[in-house]
Amino acid sequence: MIHEVAVIPGDGIGPEVVEAALGVLDAAAEAHGGVRFRYTHFPWSCRYYAEHGRMMPEEGLQTLSGFESIFLGAVGWPGVPDHVSLWGLLLPIRRRFEQYINYRPLRLLRGLRSPLKGIEPGDIDLVIVRENNEGEYSNMGGRIYEGTPREIVIQNTVFTRTGTERVVRFAFELARRRSRRLVSATKSNGINFTMPFWDQVVGEIAREYPDVTVSSYHIDALAAYFVLRPKTLDVVVGSNLFGDILSDLAAAIVGGIGLAPSANLNPERKYPSMFEPVHGSAPDIAGKGIANPTAAIWSAALMAEHLGHPDIASAIVQALEDTLAAGIVTPDQGGSAKTADVAAAVKARVRGRS
Amino acid sequence: MIHEVAVIPGDGIGPEVVEAALGVLDAAAEAHGGVRFRYTHFPWSCRYYAEHGRMMPEEGLQTLSGFESIFLGAVGWPGVPDHVSLWGLLLPIRRRFEQYINYRPLRLLRGLRSPLKGIEPGDIDLVIVRENNEGEYSNMGGRIYEGTPREIVIQNTVFTRTGTERVVRFAFELARRRSRRLVSATKSNGINFTMPFWDQVVGEIAREYPDVTVSSYHIDALAAYFVLRPKTLDVVVGSNLFGDILSDLAAAIVGGIGLAPSANLNPERKYPSMFEPVHGSAPDIAGKGIANPTAAIWSAALMAEHLGHPDIASAIVQALEDTLAAGIVTPDQGGSAKTADVAAAVKARVRGRS
Ligand SMILES: CC(C)[C@H](C(=O)O)[C@@H](O)C(=O)O
Ligand SMILES: CC(C)[C@H](C(=O)O)[C@@H](O)C(=O)O
Repeated sequence: MIHEVAVIPGDGIGPEVVEAALGVLDAAAEAHGGVRFRYTHFPWSCRYYAEHGRMMPEEGLQTLSGFESIFLGAVGWPGVPDHVSLWGLLLPIRRRFEQYINYRPLRLLRGLRSPLKGIEPGDIDLVIVRENNEGEYSNMGGRIYEGTPREIVIQNTVFTRTGTERVVRFAFELARRRSRRLVSATKSNGINFTMPFWDQVVGEIAREYPDVTVSSYHIDALAAYFVLRPKTLDVVVGSNLFGDILSDLAAAIVGGIGLAPSANLNPERKYPSMFEPVHGSAPDIAGKGIANPTAAIWSAALMAEHLGHPDIASAIVQALEDTLAAGIVTPDQGGSAKTADVAAAVKARVRGRS
Repeated sequence: MIHEVAVIPGDGIGPEVVEAALGVLDAAAEAHGGVRFRYTHFPWSCRYYAEHGRMMPEEGLQTLSGFESIFLGAVGWPGVPDHVSLWGLLLPIRRRFEQYINYRPLRLLRGLRSPLKGIEPGDIDLVIVRENNEGEYSNMGGRIYEGTPREIVIQNTVFTRTGTERVVRFAFELARRRSRRLVSATKSNGINFTMPFWDQVVGEIAREYPDVTVSSYHIDALAAYFVLRPKTLDVVVGSNLFGDILSDLAAAIVGGIGLAPSANLNPERKYPSMFEPVHGSAPDIAGKGIANPTAAIWSAALMAEHLGHPDIASAIVQALEDTLAAGIVTPDQGGSAKTADVAAAVKARVRGRS
């Protein structure tokens, strides 16, 4: 069985971690037999923008639609404003392909050290379910009286019933399969139209899941909760922005933003889903070969799982955890391994285990 | 000299911590001589709402405008939706009185324990400067197709040039007096109208402060930064929502949300400013006499400072720190002191020191 994957390495450390991750994925597929991933690379990035004046060709989305899934490194580079680079590539992909779930699991794997006191491997094991198509990332708004003292800039935050219900329902389903506890991120005290609506939908859908206990926290208190009581967190559902913030925070409490994987899912599989590390292009360390490939490798595992190969996925995560536990970690985790060293070590373990 | 202070104890633990804080403030004023605070209490709260169908009387803001400053406990109680209680009291006060700066200093005082590894008292000393009048807390928006599958809910995030410039300038001024380093919270990659505008204003005002180094971080990365590298933080400026989230996060990294004070400032002193702990009404522990009064006491110090008595302010913070360092702390900080015990201990120290 051959899976066709569109690969967008992107900018900065993107290509470095993508190479590491796909190498591991190939090794795992080979070890398990019968499955192959075929990669088609697209150079869409800020470098591409510098040459072409756009982040991807006009028919870019059309091209991607022919693939089973998309694997992305990181997008963004100094010189191209972030809203230009992201709204020219990553965000339209999430939308056009109705990847309305951003699935972001995080565990404190063996070998990782939480910056929090008294937290040991195994203590943190959570999933952020982030709305991924609407909300605060609306692309709707504008300016008036530009450049004058009277200037006003408005951005519309947009929540639809369909968009809200489907992410909340996904989160309840996941909670039912895990701890039966769901935390919902809100801010209905300050943000008085969209957030009360979010809470209302959570309340409505909760009635369909009497076996799941749901608790709502304002995002400010919830951010504090991640630091003060992370052991009790399991499934957390939030809007586009809140899910974004909480997933970096979750990465921080397990030791760094190089650790968090993500899956942009179109659960109906009508369109390709996209897999990417949560971290950015990290211009400060790009090209040095020291980027932490953990998030990208884990994202490749999520892709394998989505494509119907949970055995390959768990072999990768297991090998990754064994590698970290063996102390083969990049400088951001206090080690001296290079990106390629980590990848090689994970590959070796994936092969040995099969 | 007598200062006229309007006091709104509010809900839950609000009255408990307010009583503690004003007791300390009186003791400090007495010890320093020549200054008195006269308190006029207003029962505006969710209990008031239950009786009157509104959080404060129609002429409430008018009444408050006659005072030099306002001291508030906490607002919110189960049964009254949060957007009703907050938009009926706290948020209109912030707006009507152009309290456009929410000033939120935080230090890891002696006697507090950070949940972060390797962080000792003195290591964390920062100020969040939060925009407090506009932004994401817009009170502008609405619903269409309510209750149907086509329902859409929109909230307008509104940034004005005046509103943005004045908070950013305040932050630069503060940074100039402190470390000459300023961190700006943005999210211009995802939120593509208001946040690029915010960045632009920060860039423009930065030119007036060549002696201050400014760094912008996306809010997701910045939240992680608070956990991973808090020692290097000094002045952080953010929008209404981002400042809200970061100030609870800052409270968390010094040990709990009962620790963060705040000043809602009208820097021009045209209107009264308002002082309040950052924490909420904490229904779970209300009435037990165990609420941590640290944030409220510290907020009283900020009020004294604002009213022209920095000596009283520093005496209070010093006495508070000595009290915490002596292990006289409430259960949330691992102690067994009651709210009143902490207040009594701080009072004794304020008196002894004078
Ligand atoms: C109660 C709520 C509206 C308020 C806010 O978000 O401003 C509080 O969280 C704060 O930080 O002062
Ligand atoms: C790059 C940026 C637009 C993106 C987001 O905010 O969605 C990233 O932070 C993420 O979390 O995937």
